[in-house]
Amino acid sequence: MSEPDASFLIELAEAADRETLPRFRAGGGVDNKLKGADFDPVTEGDRAAERAIRALIAQRFPDHAILGEEYGETGSGERQWIIDPIDGTRAFITGIPVWGTLIGHYVGGRAALGIMSQPFTRERFYADGSGAFWKRGEDEARPLATRKTGTIAAATLFSTSPRLFSGPLLEGFEELEAKARLTRFGTDCYAFAMLAAGHVDLVVESGLKPYDIAALIALIEQAGGVVTTVSGERAEQGGDVVAAATPELHAAACGILSGA
Amino acid sequence: MSEPDASFLIELAEAADRETLPRFRAGGGVDNKLKGADFDPVTEGDRAAERAIRALIAQRFPDHAILGEEYGETGSGERQWIIDPIDGTRAFITGIPVWGTLIGHYVGGRAALGIMSQPFTRERFYADGSGAFWKRGEDEARPLATRKTGTIAAATLFSTSPRLFSGPLLEGFEELEAKARLTRFGTDCYAFAMLAAGHVDLVVESGLKPYDIAALIALIEQAGGVVTTVSGERAEQGGDVVAAATPELHAAACGILSGA
Repeated sequence: MSEPDASFLIELAEAADRETLPRFRAGGGVDNKLKGADFDPVTEGDRAAERAIRALIAQRFPDHAILGEEYGETGSGERQWIIDPIDGTRAFITGIPVWGTLIGHYVGGRAALGIMSQPFTRERFYADGSGAFWKRGEDEARPLATRKTGTIAAATLFSTSPRLFSGPLLEGFEELEAKARLTRFGTDCYAFAMLAAGHVDLVVESGLKPYDIAALIALIEQAGGVVTTVSGERAEQGGDVVAAATPELHAAACGILSGA
Repeated sequence: MSEPDASFLIELAEAADRETLPRFRAGGGVDNKLKGADFDPVTEGDRAAERAIRALIAQRFPDHAILGEEYGETGSGERQWIIDPIDGTRAFITGIPVWGTLIGHYVGGRAALGIMSQPFTRERFYADGSGAFWKRGEDEARPLATRKTGTIAAATLFSTSPRLFSGPLLEGFEELEAKARLTRFGTDCYAFAMLAAGHVDLVVESGLKPYDIAALIALIEQAGGVVTTVSGERAEQGGDVVAAATPELHAAACGILSGA
């Protein structure tokens, strides 16, 4: 294989699922990474899934670089895999099936491929360069497309928690919330997947790391949506991120969030 | 059949699932009940599911009273069914599988039986008088039990949205949030089900209607938890509700929420 494709993305997701799913709702080991005031749960599943994904990449594409939440950066070069083995660890440890395994692939620093896997619901949302797709269990993959929502007033807005915003961004978010048709909290990567699938119009998140968003950039862009930082830069390196179903909606949301 | 039992609860859930699941993520009809500023989505699925549940109850227990979100109160007497055909309509219309069909049964005004059905994940959480159970698809039912969490500092706290609180209850909720190990928003009835299943320790919700909580009282109590209003009254008629994994945790949460 010379290029990673959809079947390789699914192979990676399957390897991760074998580590995450048996530990979901099984009780057991939650560490506190920071060992301090901030609660940042990380499970055995997180580490085991990243090891499984890394092993497959190393076997198939030994010259590709990897950045993972648990084991950091290895290698360098044009092609890089970006892994968040369990995005939404809080959902994971509380039994809510809206967490996911995120695996993105950058070519020259730009999101080219990505997959979000939710093994409890048996869903994979992925982008392989030819488009964005949803696949459930053994069913055939179906193409994804964002909704054609053009105004904030008609938009459904998601964010993990209003507690993650502060300062001018909090003010902007509250204005957006007041103008949106509906706001909902607490869904991590699942909200981005629903944006790609045309059920949600806007997702705003603060302080994302590259591995929180890498896989989702390809998914949203290849489904017809737009995703950048609040200031309109590419989101491959994370930051305060706005994802929208359409360019008009994206521009309107960025305007409000940046106080323009 | 002289008394409703677990198999009748599941039969009701199956009838509802046939109406809700095909409409989930299908796009289509969202009305605005209030036709005004407040957004209160209600789908075709909501109405069709309640009709299906009512038809089965009328056939099997024609003398039982029914209170449903969509079609109001019918009949009267010792035994009453309380139905929320789709609890979490916002989750439903945004594609997030944490909504559920809630069907409770009161005997003399007191919660005796209840079921929460989530057909996309193929899960049923129910209490039949002998205990609380979780059943996924055709798998065998497994008993549910709350976690033995005794302190707020060790507790995971859920609520649909911090925007639903105001006044002293908001102050109390923010204090609770500051003291809890972890807080998460946005999961409607699914959070109560996870409390019964031992993955979540506290759920606080404001302004619930009887049909938002009826089914969940039996589920939580029969799993070993405690659920009352913030002031410690039975929750069968709704209100500001606190559900907790243990009596100690419940007392501590009520104390903070009521400013005691």
